[in-house]
Amino acid sequence: MNEGNFVTPFAQRFQMRVPVVQAPMAGGATTPAMVAAVSNAGGLGFLAGAALTPEKIASEVAAIRALTDRPFGVNLFVLDPASPDDATVRRALDAIDPLRADLGLPPGRALERYAPDFRAQLETLIELRVPVAGFTFGLLPAADVERLHANGQYVIGTATHVAEGLAWRDAGADAIAAQGAAAGAHRGTFIGPFEDALVDTMVLVPQLADATGLPVLAAGGIMDGRGIVAALALGAQAAMMGTAFLTCRESAIPEVWKTRVRGMSDTSTTVTRAITGRHARGIRNPLMQRLSETADNIAPYPVQNALTQELRQNAGRAQNGDYLSLWAGQGAPLGRSRAEGLGAAELMAQLEQEWLAAAERVAAFTR
Amino acid sequence: MNEGNFVTPFAQRFQMRVPVVQAPMAGGATTPAMVAAVSNAGGLGFLAGAALTPEKIASEVAAIRALTDRPFGVNLFVLDPASPDDATVRRALDAIDPLRADLGLPPGRALERYAPDFRAQLETLIELRVPVAGFTFGLLPAADVERLHANGQYVIGTATHVAEGLAWRDAGADAIAAQGAAAGAHRGTFIGPFEDALVDTMVLVPQLADATGLPVLAAGGIMDGRGIVAALALGAQAAMMGTAFLTCRESAIPEVWKTRVRGMSDTSTTVTRAITGRHARGIRNPLMQRLSETADNIAPYPVQNALTQELRQNAGRAQNGDYLSLWAGQGAPLGRSRAEGLGAAELMAQLEQEWLAAAERVAAFTR
Repeated sequence: MNEGNFVTPFAQRFQMRVPVVQAPMAGGATTPAMVAAVSNAGGLGFLAGAALTPEKIASEVAAIRALTDRPFGVNLFVLDPASPDDATVRRALDAIDPLRADLGLPPGRALERYAPDFRAQLETLIELRVPVAGFTFGLLPAADVERLHANGQYVIGTATHVAEGLAWRDAGADAIAAQGAAAGAHRGTFIGPFEDALVDTMVLVPQLADATGLPVLAAGGIMDGRGIVAALALGAQAAMMGTAFLTCRESAIPEVWKTRVRGMSDTSTTVTRAITGRHARGIRNPLMQRLSETADNIAPYPVQNALTQELRQNAGRAQNGDYLSLWAGQGAPLGRSRAEGLGAAELMAQLEQEWLAAAERVAAFTR
Repeated sequence: MNEGNFVTPFAQRFQMRVPVVQAPMAGGATTPAMVAAVSNAGGLGFLAGAALTPEKIASEVAAIRALTDRPFGVNLFVLDPASPDDATVRRALDAIDPLRADLGLPPGRALERYAPDFRAQLETLIELRVPVAGFTFGLLPAADVERLHANGQYVIGTATHVAEGLAWRDAGADAIAAQGAAAGAHRGTFIGPFEDALVDTMVLVPQLADATGLPVLAAGGIMDGRGIVAALALGAQAAMMGTAFLTCRESAIPEVWKTRVRGMSDTSTTVTRAITGRHARGIRNPLMQRLSETADNIAPYPVQNALTQELRQNAGRAQNGDYLSLWAGQGAPLGRSRAEGLGAAELMAQLEQEWLAAAERVAAFTR
């Protein structure tokens, strides 16, 4: 590609030499070092801000800005404050406590707070003028989108089917993250049942592009240059890749999680709400299995998520993969051939070479 | 593309100007007129032979050969003879009879035969020297693959995940049809539970190409030129498209089925075993809903399929879409903009233009 040319208007907007957005991944994967490395390598890095307090978001953003002058994003979960009744918490703990006991933890208790306050997080993004603000789990009111726009910020909404894409367009979003069924971790579905919203990336991307007319970022199953070019061919303006970066050196998840991701097959993941109260794709393990057996006890997100957190944190410290939430995309095995502990910058360099080579192969068809 | 050049070795093998295989679709869609039209237009047409007696396969193949000199395929379901016990049939009929009553049909009865004999169908394919023999639902013994090869026939096996692709490679198959989760109608899964085998086309195609080294045909969610180029970028040697042809003029399914396919959204389909005893993707309707409510009563394929057949045939004749099996791929809405009653040859001409234009857009990225 010629110097100064960009593949798509979205890539042009953020001066992306490589049409890759590193997907935000809650749970510790998206460190400032990763976000900055991706942006510095010509992509767009994304911090997962959903689980962070406003203060932590501010310090992480400062750390990113110390490492790069280029644009980056922060993603939040659009959530109302949770105030579960005692019975809901009690039932959830009844199912979680035996697993806690396995790790030597005392019975769990109700918490004062189940998630950071979304409105406070949003104010922080505005104060900090984070260049790209991404949203999942719900629809931002149009007035908030306007505030972000007035502040010079770019807004990306997550959609798992067309109706959600249209809702984001109507709310004023600048671009749509199309979350295909293969994507790892939480499903963004906010209209209709999640079961109806497991739409293949192959199907979702062109429909969202046609229906919304907005730039679409293709997420779900993209792990290498072949996937990037497929996404562009389908009409996406960039590929959004999470799992490919999950096992990078800069990813701060427990090593055992990385090991399990590198060892999984194409049939190792499933979608469950048992661990957090919201449907999410991860590798099957005893935690998922045992919590699924008492499905009636699962509290809604973010309550269940918070109630299982200490257990999972302990498992992480002990490198016990059986009690971790092993979020991963279905395409993970496509990354197995990459070197263990690869840095995000090196991965970006490989992806740049790969996507150009894959595009060249397609170009040869036209000659 | 230059005259005489073919996009991939698979396209070269069958002199395909357009890298499109029309997927076999049991249930009446793939008439000889459709198969021949696709092959004549530079693709590869495929007759769904699974539901046909050997005599009917022979007459359909003769009809195809009267319409084209080009290669074409016939697909079969690899099945053992079914001999259900009385209780299984009785339970299934208990659930089906109320629906039969709705259409004025008397209670159903056990049948003498639940499916055509697979071995006899296979012998017919060999006698007729059908150029391409495709197989779904199971693995053909290597000895049979050898017989087909010795007879100059090309063998395609269907895989829904990598382990199935490797099994087909080991059995000697020439190519793999990669059936992604978005694909319409029956899932080909024959190793492991179907739930684990809903792998996105985006993920399945590159993995099968890497793992088997065989030509891979990408099926599931491909509806237009964008999807064809995406499939090629992922490493497929052709796109395999069913739903795009389902609503064509040559498709002999009931008109009401075509109308429902044209009216569906990206969240209208689901995967169920309630109608035939094997998991299949179709549009939700009362037949699917009501048979799903008595899940314990569902007989295994092909028994359930045969027991619901008269009901569905009656519904078809009455153009009653509520009691039909409305098989369709998840990507169907991408075909909505095409003219109603489009002929298969015209669709192929559109796809040829579209895929070249989409490839040209990707080619522009490399300049």
